Amino acid sequence: MTDPDYGRAFAIWRDAAPQWQAYTHHPFVEGLRTGQLPRAAFLRYLAQDYVFLIHFSRAWALVAAKADTLAEMQAAAATLHALTHVEMPLHIRICAQAGITPDALESTEEVAANLAYTRYVLEAGYSGDILDLLAALAPCVLGYGAIGARLAGSGGRYADWIETYGGQDYQQLCHDVGALIDTALERRLGPGWADLPRAATLAARFATATRLEVGFWDMAAP
Amino acid sequence: MTDPDYGRAFAIWRDAAPQWQAYTHHPFVEGLRTGQLPRAAFLRYLAQDYVFLIHFSRAWALVAAKADTLAEMQAAAATLHALTHVEMPLHIRICAQAGITPDALESTEEVAANLAYTRYVLEAGYSGDILDLLAALAPCVLGYGAIGARLAGSGGRYADWIETYGGQDYQQLCHDVGALIDTALERRLGPGWADLPRAATLAARFATATRLEVGFWDMAAP
Amino acid sequence: MTDPDYGRAFAIWRDAAPQWQAYTHHPFVEGLRTGQLPRAAFLRYLAQDYVFLIHFSRAWALVAAKADTLAEMQAAAATLHALTHVEMPLHIRICAQAGITPDALESTEEVAANLAYTRYVLEAGYSGDILDLLAALAPCVLGYGAIGARLAGSGGRYADWIETYGGQDYQQLCHDVGALIDTALERRLGPGWADLPRAATLAARFATATRLEVGFWDMAAP
Amino acid sequence: MTDPDYGRAFAIWRDAAPQWQAYTHHPFVEGLRTGQLPRAAFLRYLAQDYVFLIHFSRAWALVAAKADTLAEMQAAAATLHALTHVEMPLHIRICAQAGITPDALESTEEVAANLAYTRYVLEAGYSGDILDLLAALAPCVLGYGAIGARLAGSGGRYADWIETYGGQDYQQLCHDVGALIDTALERRLGPGWADLPRAATLAARFATATRLEVGFWDMAAP
Repeated sequence: MTDPDYGRAFAIWRDAAPQWQAYTHHPFVEGLRTGQLPRAAFLRYLAQDYVFLIHFSRAWALVAAKADTLAEMQAAAATLHALTHVEMPLHIRICAQAGITPDALESTEEVAANLAYTRYVLEAGYSGDILDLLAALAPCVLGYGAIGARLAGSGGRYADWIETYGGQDYQQLCHDVGALIDTALERRLGPGWADLPRAATLAARFATATRLEVGFWDMAAP
Repeated sequence: MTDPDYGRAFAIWRDAAPQWQAYTHHPFVEGLRTGQLPRAAFLRYLAQDYVFLIHFSRAWALVAAKADTLAEMQAAAATLHALTHVEMPLHIRICAQAGITPDALESTEEVAANLAYTRYVLEAGYSGDILDLLAALAPCVLGYGAIGARLAGSGGRYADWIETYGGQDYQQLCHDVGALIDTALERRLGPGWADLPRAATLAARFATATRLEVGFWDMAAP
Repeated sequence: MTDPDYGRAFAIWRDAAPQWQAYTHHPFVEGLRTGQLPRAAFLRYLAQDYVFLIHFSRAWALVAAKADTLAEMQAAAATLHALTHVEMPLHIRICAQAGITPDALESTEEVAANLAYTRYVLEAGYSGDILDLLAALAPCVLGYGAIGARLAGSGGRYADWIETYGGQDYQQLCHDVGALIDTALERRLGPGWADLPRAATLAARFATATRLEVGFWDMAAP
Repeated sequence: MTDPDYGRAFAIWRDAAPQWQAYTHHPFVEGLRTGQLPRAAFLRYLAQDYVFLIHFSRAWALVAAKADTLAEMQAAAATLHALTHVEMPLHIRICAQAGITPDALESTEEVAANLAYTRYVLEAGYSGDILDLLAALAPCVLGYGAIGARLAGSGGRYADWIETYGGQDYQQLCHDVGALIDTALERRLGPGWADLPRAATLAARFATATRLEVGFWDMAAP
């Protein structure tokens, strides 16, 4: 099964990222699909993912701060709002059900793989412009979309997790983010952006973030 | 009539800002109160205010990017969302009713007084930390609250504008922002923050932003 | 007399900046040339220029922070070092000779025209990338070069000031900065950068900073 | 042997960093002392350290951009200048002698431990203020000083490396940076800074960067 069509930049960047397959077909992901991922690994992932989501939200806030148009600001603001007012409270509830108290969540020690990834994304945004930031954010948003689309209907122990990312809402979000990226690129660099030297830097941002996603799964893997 | 009570930092910073009175009792404000402000001046203000709101929203996005706690992120995200999804579309509609088309709004040339103010706030946030940013943002949020509270019920030609800022929703926002600032200060600098050298820098941020508010009214004044 | 040749981007941006002539032929500049600029105006300029140089140095530091290559970092670091270890101490000595003590300099109140300009440049750099920052920095560096080249040999009361910017060292700096900008542009956007949408944004950065230079002269003018 | 006295903040932060000993007495360091570190490990370290130095220099540039006083700017500018114009060219020469060509250096793939550390430091600086940045930079500057002071005179295969950091110039730099940090803290937070909530955040910055230093040695270790 091929990845969903989330737009032009996604296709170009994914095809240039050596570890895209290693990320989206990681043993951790296969464990989610088959349900054979040990619970302890999933809980380790959930706790680190909470810390990840904080910095990921901050990165989306930075997208809004670095936006040029009202449409870009609105898209980033909506994502940030959904993350902080829906996703993160939901994440806290899911963790609580799994036996991780909010206090335990808050005191999670951020492992190096998590630090590497989140700070890479934020720093890309601060040091570069909105395009660097979007390229570094894309593997997480769209990779989870690709994983969710592939695993949809697998059922099993992790069906809730799979449904979150395979479901229509999240797939729509991926299409929207893909379109936001394509529009942002064309608006600044024109329709021929893929042939500019800048395109190599952006693809490298995407590839590095993809590599750091692999490290994130590795960290949580059994 | 005294200013509303928006918390401790507001009271300290306002009392240390030489131009607070000049800002909140500016002839432009008095013109809004009496209804004698010429329409042309109001329209000039509205167009510049649209450009202002874009950068003001970006500054609130930066608050979220620089936040430490989920509560801070949620407060900033909610403000950013309200600004980009409610305030700015409303502003566009009000301008359209006043004869300023969306295209005209978009092509408004940002005057120097506007540039000075918005870039001062954003740069305070980028170069400093979240406290510098909040101190620079406060005069706008809370000053409009103080003006709205004072002018509430004046009626007249600008009753809508007055009601926006004098109304309960905006007054509640001011109380919330005041509390956000007080909590952010105590959380980082402790209850004795007002006696630290840092307090002088923050008060100077507030005072400078207040001065730039005066410049903003001057710019639009007849 | 035409402006010196500081490279391709300079020529393109200057020709697109409506107020380039107003900036480089401002009455203040003419007053420097003829020597008829009142001393009080020159001192006002010197004091504000000290505050300007602090933020201008910070902006060059930001160029180094946002650089991709060692060569870019070295160029920015050399400029920053010259500014902080040579220019600013020199400026302090010149002001002292003119009767402005270091304490008076330090307590100069930054006027709005100064705030507008410096914060615009810094914020362009923080919110954009290194190209936005360079485009916003260029009018100051290269405009003073163009003014210095034109006024060189005028003699008179302000001969020292003229010689600083008209002299070989500063002219070489302008050629180097022009080359740095051209290389940075090509390296990221390719040789056809001038035809990309991005080129319009960068030209607008240059034009706005040029406009703010006019405001700076206006502020100090008699 | 105890660490050298690099000032008050250093002593406080070091004593609160659980992995300070693990960092400064890492097996890699012991291998440098005894000379038994395999050459391949040292070369791996050198190549990654080149990439590290690029981002470390960018972080010192950011210190200058975020400085409040001319003295702070001058200190940061001098460090940045030494790094980009002396240290990095020297590093390139040392690597060349060791058989790593400049091209090979430039194409070094940055490993995750390196990414984690450098982006953590830069992001601390962008999202926080100059104090966050200095606290995150301190373990590298001062830890190498502590290691150099302890290993000085060990001789052996890595005597050059040891002498670089144990020698008088580098030790003086550590004293200067320690003083810069102490002054920056007092200037903003007053003499009682160590009792403020902020002190815990800064100590955590130092502790995290220390932890990432351990990861850096681990990465290069045989």
